[in-house]
Amino acid sequence: MARIVMKFGGTSVADIARIRNVARHVKREVEAGHEVAVVVSAMSGKTNELVGWVKDASKAEGSNFNIYDAREYDTVVASGEQVTSGLLALVLQSMGVHARSWQGWQIPIRTDNAHGAARIADIDGSFLVQRFGEGQVAVIAGFQGIGPDNRIATLGRGGSDTSAVAIAAAVKADRCDIYTDVDGVYTTDPRIEPKARRLARISFEEMLEMASLGAKVLQVRSVELAMVHKVRTFVRSSFEDPDAPGMGDIDNPPGTLICDEDEIVEQQVVTGIAYAKDEAQISLRRVSDRPGVAAGIFGPLAEAGINVDMIVQNISEDGSFTDMTFTVPSADVGKSLSVLEKVKETIGYDAVQHDDGMSKVSVIGIGMRSHAGVAATAFKALSEKGINIRAITTSEIKISILIDGPYTELAVRTLHSVYGLDKQ
Amino acid sequence: MARIVMKFGGTSVADIARIRNVARHVKREVEAGHEVAVVVSAMSGKTNELVGWVKDASKAEGSNFNIYDAREYDTVVASGEQVTSGLLALVLQSMGVHARSWQGWQIPIRTDNAHGAARIADIDGSFLVQRFGEGQVAVIAGFQGIGPDNRIATLGRGGSDTSAVAIAAAVKADRCDIYTDVDGVYTTDPRIEPKARRLARISFEEMLEMASLGAKVLQVRSVELAMVHKVRTFVRSSFEDPDAPGMGDIDNPPGTLICDEDEIVEQQVVTGIAYAKDEAQISLRRVSDRPGVAAGIFGPLAEAGINVDMIVQNISEDGSFTDMTFTVPSADVGKSLSVLEKVKETIGYDAVQHDDGMSKVSVIGIGMRSHAGVAATAFKALSEKGINIRAITTSEIKISILIDGPYTELAVRTLHSVYGLDKQ
Repeated sequence: MARIVMKFGGTSVADIARIRNVARHVKREVEAGHEVAVVVSAMSGKTNELVGWVKDASKAEGSNFNIYDAREYDTVVASGEQVTSGLLALVLQSMGVHARSWQGWQIPIRTDNAHGAARIADIDGSFLVQRFGEGQVAVIAGFQGIGPDNRIATLGRGGSDTSAVAIAAAVKADRCDIYTDVDGVYTTDPRIEPKARRLARISFEEMLEMASLGAKVLQVRSVELAMVHKVRTFVRSSFEDPDAPGMGDIDNPPGTLICDEDEIVEQQVVTGIAYAKDEAQISLRRVSDRPGVAAGIFGPLAEAGINVDMIVQNISEDGSFTDMTFTVPSADVGKSLSVLEKVKETIGYDAVQHDDGMSKVSVIGIGMRSHAGVAATAFKALSEKGINIRAITTSEIKISILIDGPYTELAVRTLHSVYGLDKQ
Repeated sequence: MARIVMKFGGTSVADIARIRNVARHVKREVEAGHEVAVVVSAMSGKTNELVGWVKDASKAEGSNFNIYDAREYDTVVASGEQVTSGLLALVLQSMGVHARSWQGWQIPIRTDNAHGAARIADIDGSFLVQRFGEGQVAVIAGFQGIGPDNRIATLGRGGSDTSAVAIAAAVKADRCDIYTDVDGVYTTDPRIEPKARRLARISFEEMLEMASLGAKVLQVRSVELAMVHKVRTFVRSSFEDPDAPGMGDIDNPPGTLICDEDEIVEQQVVTGIAYAKDEAQISLRRVSDRPGVAAGIFGPLAEAGINVDMIVQNISEDGSFTDMTFTVPSADVGKSLSVLEKVKETIGYDAVQHDDGMSKVSVIGIGMRSHAGVAATAFKALSEKGINIRAITTSEIKISILIDGPYTELAVRTLHSVYGLDKQ
């Protein structure tokens, strides 16, 4: 007997037929004797519809100005998951599975007061655990909790993953299964490299780098939370036949296990190749090299809501001026330039250069820590294909390389091959 | 300064444009210096969509059998009002009106445990009153509260009227305005009699008879509740220009005031003519006339969910047998006959006769109590038009007459005229 949290996203619960399929996955685990909590998203499309209404409603007549009370946003948008939780409980009951729905405020899942993007502060798992003892499946509305103001608070887009992991931690689940429209985490994007393989296991740290770099399988915050609480998290497909052989395997179901690196016996040097397109490079030339200058640049950009990714600064030749290069999403170039123009006096720089249509490819692997020459292998392989490297940043388990956009696919395939990821 | 509860139904909040119109009604009252709580229904069509999903979800595969957990039904269906409450709060905010949404569980509106058709047990109005003091408009999701099991409980279809009246009683409102798609209560159905006039005032008792007889303006339970708590209730139109002259009149807004009969200075003998089509008459011949026989007939019918309306029993000639006539909705005739067949032995009767396609027309008026000859006037007028009377029942303030369906419109117009209702 194990205790399992199962999470199903919007496309998996898009209509009653699909909810019925989800219920079959749940029933399989219940019949195997496990204690089960299910976390559900809104039916696909619903959240967008509700958000659209919120935007329409909050627009003053004849104005395009659009700010809204995040508490009302939460009240409206959280209704999507509320509906799915009730429907799945009903379908389970119709299949003879003892189930009930739970809203965030009933459990309760307590959050902070940051409506619209709240963080979970505390989950009281005692009710759920008591019901497990009575053989009842808990069907929990994801993406939401209750704030200190006694109002519904949502966790931000994709928050149902976070709900699932947090609940798994609260009830000390043996496993948290994230059912999604892909069947696991791959060594790279299979649309670019058909030889990409599904990983059986990946460490939390690697998954964090993969997720934030564009392998958009799991919300980054949910992986952070899983890492902190050591929640063993499976990424698996909701569209496979729920009763196919092996689906109920408690130790090794089909999918990718995200886990502590201790659980990964045979470490690969490199685990995966990620990429992000539509990056723009911005360089400030002859920035005066004094303490506080980086804060002077990136503080205002952050305040403007611009997501700066790579940052490269070289040591200046003579100690008085330096060049500063960073990347932003291409869509934010205009906004970035106008922010930089405004703070030009404060920072003091000669010129701004920018170039968009860039891509970032990244090599990720915990094994890098103990293996020398991983970066050199990448540089050599790219150079042999004539791919020009614009900028490089590295961390302990990741090397990111900025290249010209049109070379993205070639670079991904080259790196995937050079580290042997296309071989079993 | 007055304290006003305003209620808007589904067609009044069908989309953002209409919600904006509703907000203008609210803003008008706020700007007049009143304290305002608003109760909203789900956007029109939403409740049906949600109920449809519940039915689909609870249907076991390959079966037409459809029972469902009313608690899950409530969780799903109540989301409709939750959405509207948030959206109206947002629109009000965009117009500069200080507003927030309230769900039943937040106020709280406590109900009994009869999920799907719960009754309000208690409303704590203290939060609302406190917020009135801060100048905040309360936008309340109608149709729902929280049960003793800490789960959402809905009040049954049309329950938002009941929510509004109950909240008006809890906060001791001066007035409860029910905004709907008609602009008041009429002396009869204007589609049948174009000379029908809008009543300025009608007593609770008369409204109860009007409502249950087919003048479907207000849910019957809400009128009962208004009568018990003496909540002055206005029925008025949400589709009129919110800023038209007189709309903000605190004593006499356009519409019909439902109030205690003491408030109605000039009593008319007859207030209105109601009707109900598609009635069927069922007669049991030679029923043995002994104590308990009526219970033996109507008990089983009630258990089968059949809504018996008129009941007529004549004193038997020789004290041993009697005839029993009653009406049911035409759609329930088959079911009624099979129930009667089952209890034939227990009751003991000779034969069942039935006849559908009947209508019931009713004359309603508190003035009847003190005026003789009201019934005789009706009988004479109908007879002059050659309309055959099948059965008659009377109460203190109502005379109901069963006639053949095709004469409905003629009977309504005849009675409307004979009591002078078409004259100012």
